[in-house]
Amino acid sequence: MRPVSEPDPRIERSRDAIRQAAIEELAEVGYGAMTIESIAHRAGVGKATIYRHWRGKLDLLASALETLREDVVAPSDGTIRERVTTLLERLASHLSDSDLAACLPALVGAARYDDAIRDFQRDFSRERRQVLVDLIVEGVATGELDGGLDPVLAADALAGPLFYARLVAHQPFPPERVGRLVALVLD
Amino acid sequence: MRPVSEPDPRIERSRDAIRQAAIEELAEVGYGAMTIESIAHRAGVGKATIYRHWRGKLDLLASALETLREDVVAPSDGTIRERVTTLLERLASHLSDSDLAACLPALVGAARYDDAIRDFQRDFSRERRQVLVDLIVEGVATGELDGGLDPVLAADALAGPLFYARLVAHQPFPPERVGRLVALVLD
Repeated sequence: MRPVSEPDPRIERSRDAIRQAAIEELAEVGYGAMTIESIAHRAGVGKATIYRHWRGKLDLLASALETLREDVVAPSDGTIRERVTTLLERLASHLSDSDLAACLPALVGAARYDDAIRDFQRDFSRERRQVLVDLIVEGVATGELDGGLDPVLAADALAGPLFYARLVAHQPFPPERVGRLVALVLD
Repeated sequence: MRPVSEPDPRIERSRDAIRQAAIEELAEVGYGAMTIESIAHRAGVGKATIYRHWRGKLDLLASALETLREDVVAPSDGTIRERVTTLLERLASHLSDSDLAACLPALVGAARYDDAIRDFQRDFSRERRQVLVDLIVEGVATGELDGGLDPVLAADALAGPLFYARLVAHQPFPPERVGRLVALVLD
């Protein structure tokens, strides 16, 4: 027998499929048009199954976006400049071609009309940014980076262009330019 | 009699009112939900009046967004650093509180589903960015800025954080931080 604390693998698989369906649905039709019904249809489950695990659309979406979060762990090897570069290359590539990239414009558009989406996106982005800020703080502390550097401002100057490229300019930020951006901001 | 080339001021006023209504409608309900009918209603004109001047929703929107463009003329007085700072302070304030700020999330969200909106936004943002790039090129040419600076990359590192703040972090970029951002990227 499985211990009580261990999740039932069939239920976990079903939850994963529902989360994935929510992300695909958001990317495809946008937040306003997606419904619990359309997500259930896409995942091949009944609406009741979704409501057993989540309170509603926003709750499910928050849970689904959590599954995209694993990619923002800071690289642990190399100098701070190398680790920042790797983190940003990953972000650039992620923003060009991933489930997150497909969802982001829908979230930005929905945030204008839905306070809960806006708060969620703000907290989510703040946590993601903190990984970059922490790396820069570490670099300042060890003396690799200039002591006068403002870590939050530097993080914004590094990550901002990647989001601008994706959301406004509609031209992916070339990952091979990341190294030059890191040099521009951190040197 | 007015010469033929001079526009009828009553027609111009009507066109301006329609353009303004299109911008307000976009900000309020989003691109997908706005219609020629809802814009006509808001502007207090008939649909036929709109179709006399524009081919459709996208054509009208492009024309309406043109009216927001006047704010991105480069400041002509001061050093390049001062002019870049003024330009970015204006952009930061503009992105916090303006018709453009209200429309931008709707445009970003719509660009995911509408190629014409995406192309329009890409061209629009490229033109706007060019004002900043030109200032940096001028600064490099006169020797005020470092010769090794990549003007496009620097422009992205300067403007990117302002759009990131508006669209992703949902916390306006404080105009008083612009000077530090300019120093970080250009010095």
